[in-house]
Amino acid sequence: MNPQEIAADFTALCKQGQFEEAGRRYWSDDAVSCEPMGGDMSEAKGRKAVEAKGEWWYANHEIHSVKVEGPYVHGQQFVVRFTMEVTPKGGERLAMDEVGVYTLDATGKITEERFFYGS
Amino acid sequence: MNPQEIAADFTALCKQGQFEEAGRRYWSDDAVSCEPMGGDMSEAKGRKAVEAKGEWWYANHEIHSVKVEGPYVHGQQFVVRFTMEVTPKGGERLAMDEVGVYTLDATGKITEERFFYGS
Repeated sequence: MNPQEIAADFTALCKQGQFEEAGRRYWSDDAVSCEPMGGDMSEAKGRKAVEAKGEWWYANHEIHSVKVEGPYVHGQQFVVRFTMEVTPKGGERLAMDEVGVYTLDATGKITEERFFYGS
Repeated sequence: MNPQEIAADFTALCKQGQFEEAGRRYWSDDAVSCEPMGGDMSEAKGRKAVEAKGEWWYANHEIHSVKVEGPYVHGQQFVVRFTMEVTPKGGERLAMDEVGVYTLDATGKITEERFFYGS
């Protein structure tokens, strides 16, 4: 599969809500997931840490709706937009609008997921 | 201005259709603008080449509508989405959906604009 095909498959799985399956297929063992804010959760290094971050997120957010747009492709990178309505545990319902920039290695695995937040 | 403020100002100018003014304020002299496709137009290096690329684009496309969304910010980078209806000179009207990933240097100037195309 070329980057366009990988990006399309990854994004299609996200559109179906199959985020874990998308990760299982495409995370590299060396994957890094980066959030813009500082602090402990800003960088998850390695597949296990990335998966644990995902599990933490799902356990701590009630998801009301997710809209996934993309992918947008350039070479070994692609962009996906996520528009969500969620309620963090013990918090108030909020709208999130963010994009993820994904970088593939030569074998077609995702080595970096970098989130950008809309304001 | 911090990256968040620069991203907000750049994007606000784009939303107002002031693409040239956005460039005048924020392009670095060493700016590079990259398109996903190959060929002569895939990389414009240096502010003059980037400005010439913009002039070429406006001279060769009739723009019917532009929707600008963003910015989405992470550190020294930000993302802007452009959804357009255009007619290339001598061609047929088409819908374009793309995102630009912008990278700022330490002085707050844009050193790289990298376009990603939606399909």
